[in-house]
Amino acid sequence: MPVAGPRGFRSRTAALGIKDEADDFVVVLSDVPAVVSAVFTQSRFAGPSVTLSRESAATGRARGVLTVARNANVATGAEGLANAREVRALVADAAGIAPEELLIASTGVIGRQYPMDRIRSGLAELAWPLPEIDAASTARAIMTTDTVPKHVTLKCGNAVISAVAKGVGMIEPNMATLLTYFFTDAELSQPALDRIFRRVVDRTFNALSIDTDTSTSDSAAIFANGLAGPVDEAEFEAVLYEAALRLVRSIASDGEGASKLIEVRVTGARDDAQAKRVGKVVVNSPLVKTAVHGADPNWGRVAMAIGKCEDDLDIDPTKVTIRFGDVETYPAPTTDETLAAATAHLKGDEVVLSVDLAIATGAFTVYGCDLTDGYIRINADYTT
Amino acid sequence: MPVAGPRGFRSRTAALGIKDEADDFVVVLSDVPAVVSAVFTQSRFAGPSVTLSRESAATGRARGVLTVARNANVATGAEGLANAREVRALVADAAGIAPEELLIASTGVIGRQYPMDRIRSGLAELAWPLPEIDAASTARAIMTTDTVPKHVTLKCGNAVISAVAKGVGMIEPNMATLLTYFFTDAELSQPALDRIFRRVVDRTFNALSIDTDTSTSDSAAIFANGLAGPVDEAEFEAVLYEAALRLVRSIASDGEGASKLIEVRVTGARDDAQAKRVGKVVVNSPLVKTAVHGADPNWGRVAMAIGKCEDDLDIDPTKVTIRFGDVETYPAPTTDETLAAATAHLKGDEVVLSVDLAIATGAFTVYGCDLTDGYIRINADYTT
Repeated sequence: MPVAGPRGFRSRTAALGIKDEADDFVVVLSDVPAVVSAVFTQSRFAGPSVTLSRESAATGRARGVLTVARNANVATGAEGLANAREVRALVADAAGIAPEELLIASTGVIGRQYPMDRIRSGLAELAWPLPEIDAASTARAIMTTDTVPKHVTLKCGNAVISAVAKGVGMIEPNMATLLTYFFTDAELSQPALDRIFRRVVDRTFNALSIDTDTSTSDSAAIFANGLAGPVDEAEFEAVLYEAALRLVRSIASDGEGASKLIEVRVTGARDDAQAKRVGKVVVNSPLVKTAVHGADPNWGRVAMAIGKCEDDLDIDPTKVTIRFGDVETYPAPTTDETLAAATAHLKGDEVVLSVDLAIATGAFTVYGCDLTDGYIRINADYTT
Repeated sequence: MPVAGPRGFRSRTAALGIKDEADDFVVVLSDVPAVVSAVFTQSRFAGPSVTLSRESAATGRARGVLTVARNANVATGAEGLANAREVRALVADAAGIAPEELLIASTGVIGRQYPMDRIRSGLAELAWPLPEIDAASTARAIMTTDTVPKHVTLKCGNAVISAVAKGVGMIEPNMATLLTYFFTDAELSQPALDRIFRRVVDRTFNALSIDTDTSTSDSAAIFANGLAGPVDEAEFEAVLYEAALRLVRSIASDGEGASKLIEVRVTGARDDAQAKRVGKVVVNSPLVKTAVHGADPNWGRVAMAIGKCEDDLDIDPTKVTIRFGDVETYPAPTTDETLAAATAHLKGDEVVLSVDLAIATGAFTVYGCDLTDGYIRINADYTT
């Protein structure tokens, strides 16, 4: 029996006909004002949705978020900004709240204006009031090339966290993420929520990379409306981390064309930042990704990738250890037995590469996926 | 009728049986001491060949270079270093020169020791003296996954430049390159040669990227023995640039699995460094590379890639211009005609993407290739 959603959150999806017949719109609202924390893409080509949401989130309070899918509304100039404002105002008016209380996100093709006629008439037909939050249909409405909807609902004491995410390509979040929203009825101060959320995002969404390409629309937000009363902050952070990690692992497994999740665990670094840098350079290496796809325990490519951290002069190649699963492949001399064991691990759905730098105690784990023919087909055949 | 090679350079290839029956060894020597300039990989996992050659090149004078192919001799510890020293000493002794006068390079699989027995007996059978330099067989002997040998010979006044290169994967040179050697009988001072060579490498080999992965063995060197007498330095630099550019374009066209050369011309940047940064981020984007492969004029992906230069706060998305060939796709609104013209350009073997940033006059052109099923097959099926 699924956990009920967080109290006081409502959602509605709709098919506005932006590109096809599927749901391409969703709004999630809290009955009462919620504290909010959010992080966004650092792209120089960030779209107007990001601009508007950044302004709203800066106030620390919001009522919810609307998402338009199948069109990113990016690189659309002044007309695109005016359209984003109008869409947000239409939904806010119908909800009886101020436009500034609503975050807006958009995802899909870049460089095309919204079909405003269809959006206006679709929004006019939206039924109010909204029913209780439905994380599954919310997750489905924001999908683009995703093959599975990504959502999770977890209890935290008396409170509940429901979260959704979308995205399987153009994913190398950097101080931001793809699209992901968290809704909770836990009661937290905005500064506490912000501190916890940023820590969790750093270890989950910012630890994820599918293809090194950073989306222009990345947005991550958490809304806490307090209706379930106070929570233990440490427990809340642990549950939030668990929810975010499940979404991240689901995204990596569903990465465009991916056949395997890759987890790179870096330990023994000078600090966590160095560990993250090394993890990213390994998980993003196309030669590592293709070796994993081919189940080839080619640890030389992992060494090559670590070597790319050329400013990390304290990385000593003679002290580095590389493991596939539990199998050490460097510096221990490889034998037929160790190569066979490493190959067996690589044939699984979830591959763990461990790198120890033997410098200090910094550690970080990053998530990605293998690189396959499927990625090429999806992205070479995608038609503008 | 091919141009004769530079005076006073000799070469010999051999099949030492490192991996198969093909030539896997070549030595090129000058009859007289030559001035030398060289740049090497910045990888933290650089191999002992790079260590030894860096020391030799630092003296500014050398007699030549030997290359072992099919084995990179990287991540091989103290034994690998001792082996590199022995191989260099064996060849130097036979040539009657000091080991320090000889650069050494190695390319191939990482993490495996040289088969020293076979190398020792093969080198003992090498016939001396060497015949005149043969650029074609030199280029063929250093190939790994290359499908064509890469060499060029050009005249510069009375002098001649012969150059060879290898490499089609693990290529994102950074202050260095894959393996490439230039031999000339022009007479130049070492400081002049060094200045010219670094400028040329920066605009050619350092402007090339196949897959963002940086080799542990990158080495580029030029030897000038002066036997043809002085040359005009500006003319020499122009001819050297032309020779290097031909090798770079050949490498990009032969990139692992590549079906097209991609040239990204960035203009209007704050400075040349910014133009190079923007060019690299575009030519390395897997979503741009797959769009080019699919002949899809998806300029939104080019915009996305530029957006990743998040520290370049002076890049204003409303001022950027993007062209496929001569066809402007942003900000000019695309029409069926412009999209068809851009698609036609993308269907050619050589694709030019132009980006103007409208900031100042910085400019840089980078070279790469598309990302195809072939890259996945070559690198997923490669067996350790």
